[in-house]
Amino acid sequence: MKIIRVDTRDWGVREEMLEAERGHYGGRLLTSTIVADEVPPLCHPLGAGNKLVIANGVFAGHANAPCSGRISVGCKSPLTGGIKESNTGGDVGTYLARHGIRAIVLEGLPEGDEWKVLHVDEDGVSVRSGQAYVGLNTYDTVSAIRRDFGEKATVLCIGRAGEQRMSAASIALTSIEGPPSRHCGRGGTGAVMGSKRLKAIIVEPTPGKGTPPADEAQFGRLCADFAKEVREARRILREYGTANLVNIINELGGLATRNFSAGSFEHAEEISGEKLRELIDARGGAHGRPCMPGCPIQCANRYVCEDGTVVDDIEFESIVLLGSNLGIGNLDDLARLERMCDDVGLDTIEVGNTIGVLMEAGVLEFGDGKGALRLLEELSEGTPLGRIIGAGAAVAAKAYGVRRAPTVKGQGMAAYDPRGLKGMGVTYATSPMGADHTAGAAIPNRPGIGELELATMDKQDKDLVSYDLQILTGALDALGVCMFTGPAVGPVQTWAKILSAFTDEEWTFRRLLELAHDMIQLEIDFNRRAGFSKEHDRLPEHFLCEPLPPKGPVFDVEEEKLDGVTGGLRVEDRLTEE
Amino acid sequence: MKIIRVDTRDWGVREEMLEAERGHYGGRLLTSTIVADEVPPLCHPLGAGNKLVIANGVFAGHANAPCSGRISVGCKSPLTGGIKESNTGGDVGTYLARHGIRAIVLEGLPEGDEWKVLHVDEDGVSVRSGQAYVGLNTYDTVSAIRRDFGEKATVLCIGRAGEQRMSAASIALTSIEGPPSRHCGRGGTGAVMGSKRLKAIIVEPTPGKGTPPADEAQFGRLCADFAKEVREARRILREYGTANLVNIINELGGLATRNFSAGSFEHAEEISGEKLRELIDARGGAHGRPCMPGCPIQCANRYVCEDGTVVDDIEFESIVLLGSNLGIGNLDDLARLERMCDDVGLDTIEVGNTIGVLMEAGVLEFGDGKGALRLLEELSEGTPLGRIIGAGAAVAAKAYGVRRAPTVKGQGMAAYDPRGLKGMGVTYATSPMGADHTAGAAIPNRPGIGELELATMDKQDKDLVSYDLQILTGALDALGVCMFTGPAVGPVQTWAKILSAFTDEEWTFRRLLELAHDMIQLEIDFNRRAGFSKEHDRLPEHFLCEPLPPKGPVFDVEEEKLDGVTGGLRVEDRLTEE
Repeated sequence: MKIIRVDTRDWGVREEMLEAERGHYGGRLLTSTIVADEVPPLCHPLGAGNKLVIANGVFAGHANAPCSGRISVGCKSPLTGGIKESNTGGDVGTYLARHGIRAIVLEGLPEGDEWKVLHVDEDGVSVRSGQAYVGLNTYDTVSAIRRDFGEKATVLCIGRAGEQRMSAASIALTSIEGPPSRHCGRGGTGAVMGSKRLKAIIVEPTPGKGTPPADEAQFGRLCADFAKEVREARRILREYGTANLVNIINELGGLATRNFSAGSFEHAEEISGEKLRELIDARGGAHGRPCMPGCPIQCANRYVCEDGTVVDDIEFESIVLLGSNLGIGNLDDLARLERMCDDVGLDTIEVGNTIGVLMEAGVLEFGDGKGALRLLEELSEGTPLGRIIGAGAAVAAKAYGVRRAPTVKGQGMAAYDPRGLKGMGVTYATSPMGADHTAGAAIPNRPGIGELELATMDKQDKDLVSYDLQILTGALDALGVCMFTGPAVGPVQTWAKILSAFTDEEWTFRRLLELAHDMIQLEIDFNRRAGFSKEHDRLPEHFLCEPLPPKGPVFDVEEEKLDGVTGGLRVEDRLTEE
Repeated sequence: MKIIRVDTRDWGVREEMLEAERGHYGGRLLTSTIVADEVPPLCHPLGAGNKLVIANGVFAGHANAPCSGRISVGCKSPLTGGIKESNTGGDVGTYLARHGIRAIVLEGLPEGDEWKVLHVDEDGVSVRSGQAYVGLNTYDTVSAIRRDFGEKATVLCIGRAGEQRMSAASIALTSIEGPPSRHCGRGGTGAVMGSKRLKAIIVEPTPGKGTPPADEAQFGRLCADFAKEVREARRILREYGTANLVNIINELGGLATRNFSAGSFEHAEEISGEKLRELIDARGGAHGRPCMPGCPIQCANRYVCEDGTVVDDIEFESIVLLGSNLGIGNLDDLARLERMCDDVGLDTIEVGNTIGVLMEAGVLEFGDGKGALRLLEELSEGTPLGRIIGAGAAVAAKAYGVRRAPTVKGQGMAAYDPRGLKGMGVTYATSPMGADHTAGAAIPNRPGIGELELATMDKQDKDLVSYDLQILTGALDALGVCMFTGPAVGPVQTWAKILSAFTDEEWTFRRLLELAHDMIQLEIDFNRRAGFSKEHDRLPEHFLCEPLPPKGPVFDVEEEKLDGVTGGLRVEDRLTEE
């Protein structure tokens, strides 16, 4: 597989082959390795020293390996100042692999004002003018690109947020269903792409394949069995999407509500997965949609607002951060906010955090969905208030003198209040990514796929649980496969077997965990060199001293425990003990 | 001497006596000690855990000790997140001491919305309603207070910036000449005062004295001699004010110009000390004004714009940051900006840095003085753009995706480009205060007071020079006396003698340096506990790689040298060697 390096100073394109001993490198493992090796930790995230690494996973191109076509994006984050990896689905990863490409690395900084796009087809990678797409948001960008390159083009692009180098800017990817509704949301990767004046990467579909498996028959058998297992285990995701969690987390008292001032929301039912499904069925939307070729889970959806507005792929995090966290108990209002974020190219989590902070500051009232939508229109226009929102919750809190900013390492929290879900709080605190739920999603286990009863609220060892999950998730991220095939012991064991068949090397469960552990340690080391110390592995003080209504917990995991979290590899040992 | 503690939760006032063994504690030594001992390093700067410590110096009240009435303010900084000390002159410190008060410590956070003022007279300290002054800027606040409490009241207060908890908010102090033109500018101390809802401290003049000197005759003799010496040595400050530096620094190629993109300014002559004096003489302003009782230096002034606007105390830093750094080559324009900053209660350095960043972002043109004034009007009103400006240069750069932010530890640089004055650059990088010139002002020695030829551009040991100056200045700050009596070896030696006469203890030069060294180490340790590591002792990368026109230097002091800067006490050793 090839790595494509694009020097944006002169837009020269250089190909190199992935070294043989790195044949299994992809996803977060590849992006974090390149960033840690090549990006000066103290460089400015929007400067020439930063690199944007866009990589698919080791199995990408093989649609029979379930959910293996994800794209991982890595760089030094303009939001956190640390290393960042953000991944998503969509169809770009699959086709990039089928063109023989494992990663595209954007380097340097262009001198001029001109914007470019990269085009990938069977003739290779070419640089073309992107001027025609400048100023367009993601939906219009994709439409215009498809007008120019054909309806089947798959696209990775930024909207106006990324063009304006906003720290909350995402990179949008097209879903197999068409729209640019899959986002590498977190950490401002879109701003880094914008700083390099690359508007889009266009990847033409091709029937080619990625790396051929070493033992194709065995690989095929394992994948088929696993896909079936995953499909069965994740039935609830197909039926209700990730939104199925709304009622569960609300019940637990950990649903981010009104700038994290409460853990349950009186209108939770109105924005729940069940309600979403009801309205989808009633209004002619869709559920159970895949985002990439060959996904057996199919958690995506299409929602239709009462006024006919179509919104693609409403997810749990967006529902909570743009819903309960803003006091908005109306699916149509938050769906329009989500659609606007997807279009402008923004992380819905960061934007929800930011507007929550602004509501706490009194800029608008909690519950004012129309007002929030107006704010996002400002953002697209780049007004000063729009600039504040685009810069994220920590900046908004600084600008408005708000002391309750729900951020760690400068990044806004996901949908789970860390007082209500303390294992998640440990992940927020200790992940090198900042307050990120996917880094180690310690939520009470849902029925099905996992062997370990991870992260229940009453478990004493939340610190260990968090890192177990960081490692297990890290293994999936390192392979570039969807977290929803795990993260738990069984699936990761299965992936180890699949990787063995694929590479003809012996991949034990332990070896895969060690790979993930080493990857996370590499990220932590980058952060240390960028100026992070253990004092950055902390939650903001109000989570430690202000009890969360209605149940009243505070985040009380001791600092000493937090300091030990990412220290050692313990998953397997703990497994053996149990 | 007393320390007054005010618990803002219930506005209870508690007096305690300064411990006997801390009789020499005052100024930065006292504020930093209290902050380091009592403020949790990871608390939110605007939260209940932070404290605002307001202290005068050990000699305060004795006007014969030259320039000894300064006020030091300390807290955890909302701007940097680290420890902060900012000091200024004015007449408050003198009278506070004459009421027997060494420090006022504001603690906790009030629950309600009501604002208060503290009133200090011979009956003690009382808390009164401050509601009548809310929404007023500093000049109106002082006028209203003097209407209520008499024309002689001395005042320490915040303007609307502090009320709005802006990170660039200063605390204003009245000058002996009347206006609130002396500012503890740096680090957002005004925001901390605003978070505690204290609008002002009113100190009635009194003929009382501070601590009586142990050997009054000797103390008096030493002070009289020293005052004479200082007056003579600082003649140029009396004639031209600090603005005398404009032409010198411009000549050296280190004058912050257009967001630090050049080191000399084509209109430097127009904003020079000489021009300032010419216009003062022509238009009926004043020069050679003292800011506090008994100052022999008298560097302050009063400037009158062509339209009659009176501006008090235009300083070098303001001239550069609001002048050349914004491309403004017109004293009237920048004087109005300075007046507005003083009135709203803002650090002119931070504001100049911030508007420079916004000019680089294209929000307004370099040179647009009228536009800059409009921005400051917005700031007073708290518009979103005003909020961005009030939050400082680092936040503005994040909001606008600007990578050339001239900040260290989140604080904007003073008037000296660190490429042109590398010793100053070392101070910017390594001072626990962030990019602060007063922390160790390594500028080419001006004629007169110093024995050591410190910090010339061609000296090889800029790292050592910086810390020598940090220690020497630290000694002055620890005593609460004006930096303009030094910082150099001779004056600090004299201060040691004066302190010996004052306390009847033996204060050698070395003991005083050790006191300063220990104080700085205490501050560095607080910062370490607040999450700062050696990676924060760095300049932004563009100063390292973009040569500064016209002379072309980059900041090339090695990281290893920076890491060693604050390690040891070397001033005296170096002195002995020379």
